[in-house]
Parts: sequence; structure tokens; C-alpha cells
Amino acid sequence: MEHLEIERKFLVVSEAYKKDATSETRIVQGFLNTAPERTVRVRIKGNKGYLTIKGKGNESGTTRFEWEKEISFKDATNLIDLCEPGILEKIRFEVPAGEHLFEIDEFLGENEGLVVAEVELQNEDERFDKPDWLGDEVTGQIKYYNSQLTKKPFINW
Amino acid sequence: MEHLEIERKFLVVSEAYKKDATSETRIVQGFLNTAPERTVRVRIKGNKGYLTIKGKGNESGTTRFEWEKEISFKDATNLIDLCEPGILEKIRFEVPAGEHLFEIDEFLGENEGLVVAEVELQNEDERFDKPDWLGDEVTGQIKYYNSQLTKKPFINW
Repeated sequence: MEHLEIERKFLVVSEAYKKDATSETRIVQGFLNTAPERTVRVRIKGNKGYLTIKGKGNESGTTRFEWEKEISFKDATNLIDLCEPGILEKIRFEVPAGEHLFEIDEFLGENEGLVVAEVELQNEDERFDKPDWLGDEVTGQIKYYNSQLTKKPFINW
Repeated sequence: MEHLEIERKFLVVSEAYKKDATSETRIVQGFLNTAPERTVRVRIKGNKGYLTIKGKGNESGTTRFEWEKEISFKDATNLIDLCEPGILEKIRFEVPAGEHLFEIDEFLGENEGLVVAEVELQNEDERFDKPDWLGDEVTGQIKYYNSQLTKKPFINW
């Protein structure tokens, strides 16, 4: 499945989102390529595996080409072994707010302390509710790309 | 589908293989990563698409981890657009010889003049017939990896 992914990314300034979370899933992921022009990600989410390929964002960083396929847990485990050094671990919370669903990633390991929220939109100008726990926008800032967090983790910022 | 790929690669010294070919298919392929440790290949073969991920070879170069999935022609076309510069084109001939099937790639474009044959084996010591058109072995020589031919094409050797 392939589409243009339109999303905006924000820092998270409090843990208040946790009381509204409808799910909490552990994610382990690595990259077969971290170049922003052709990111290749292997992800284990709960007991499922995914392979995801993304292109470079547009100028505002809102829109990226994204292709994703579910793969077996076993394949994902084997492919993570081939990934570049720097496997990411995080806990993902899904938090509905108004008409939208926020995905909040609480990073672990060398990125502990970093918490970001993403909301997927239908078009670039779509409005959405901003919960109190939502902080500054960081959409399109490459250092917040997960592919970059493997190389320059939050602990070194 | 994922397996250890055991194969040997040879130069081809004459066009005699063509009279025994049972199929002839055009292949267009690009790479989302050309690092030998984690090659990510997008291939269009005839009207089908494939995504293939390979690990680094063992010391003799005979065995590599390989994972491959068929994807749609449309997805493959879109993913080739994200690939590193240097899209490869070649004609693949399938040629049975004895108990084995040789795949012979006749490269086009900047690799024109290069013709290589590969045979897949069940184990590293397996014996196989060597047809007259088979030349020197180049198994494990990284410059013959397709991923490297995109960067250092045969025309520049």
C-alpha cells in the first residue's frame, strides 16, 4: 500500500495524554537506509512486522511518499539483524482528540526523555484540536526523524 | 520469503547459451541501498514487481541472506523513482544445463558488454555441469554485484 503521508509532529509537554490513551504498544525498529530521500524501516509493533519505505518530505515537511507492507514477525526479526547500528525502542500511545487520532511516541534507551506526538491529516490545511499536552511544532525538522535518532540520539543533543 | 541464497557466478564467453534459453525477460532494477551489508533492491521483471533485501556474503561469497517479496508493478514503479541514481537494465535468459538452471544476465546501457551467469545450489559443494560458454568464476567479487554496477558501471572498468 502506498500513499502520500500528510502529518504534523509536535513535542509533548506533559504526561496528561496518558489518561486518554486507548492503546499502548511497544515498538522496536531499525533502518536499512536512513537517507531522508529513501528511508527503509523495519518495525516490530507488538507481535506484527512491517516494512516501510519513505521518500523525502516536501518543503514544509508535511507530506512524504510512504509505502508500507505487513511482513511476518519472523521476517521482521531477521531483517532487523541486517539494519544499521542504532535500533530504536519506544512505547506508542494512541490518543483520540476531537476528530483526530494522535500517536504519541515515548522513546526509550538513548532517546529517553523525548516524547513526540503526530497527527495524520487528509490535507495540509486541515484543522485539528490541540490538546493541552501538545507543545511546539517540529514538523519537517530532520533531527526528529526516527531515522536520524538512531545516529544522533536525544541523549547527545 | 527468506532464505540463505547459495549461488556461484561466472563470466560468459560466448553467445552459445542463447540457443538453449527457455525464457528471455527484461529486468529493470534500482537500489534503495547499495551497501553490501544491507542491499535493498526494487525490481521490475516483465510485468511483475519485487522487493529484495540481501545481507553480506560469507567469506567465499557463495552464501547470502536473502528476503524477497512480490509487490505490484505500480508499487515497484513508484519505488524505483526513490532509488539511488543508476538504474540497471538487463535481459535475463534462463538456460537449463544438466540438473541445474543457469540465469544469464546480458547487461544494457553503461554495463553493455558484461554478461554473467549464475547458478543456485543447495549446498556450497554441490557439483554441476559447466557448459562450454561458461568462463571464469567471479563469485563473491563485489564489483560484479548489481548494486555496485550502478555506481561503477562496466564501461568505466
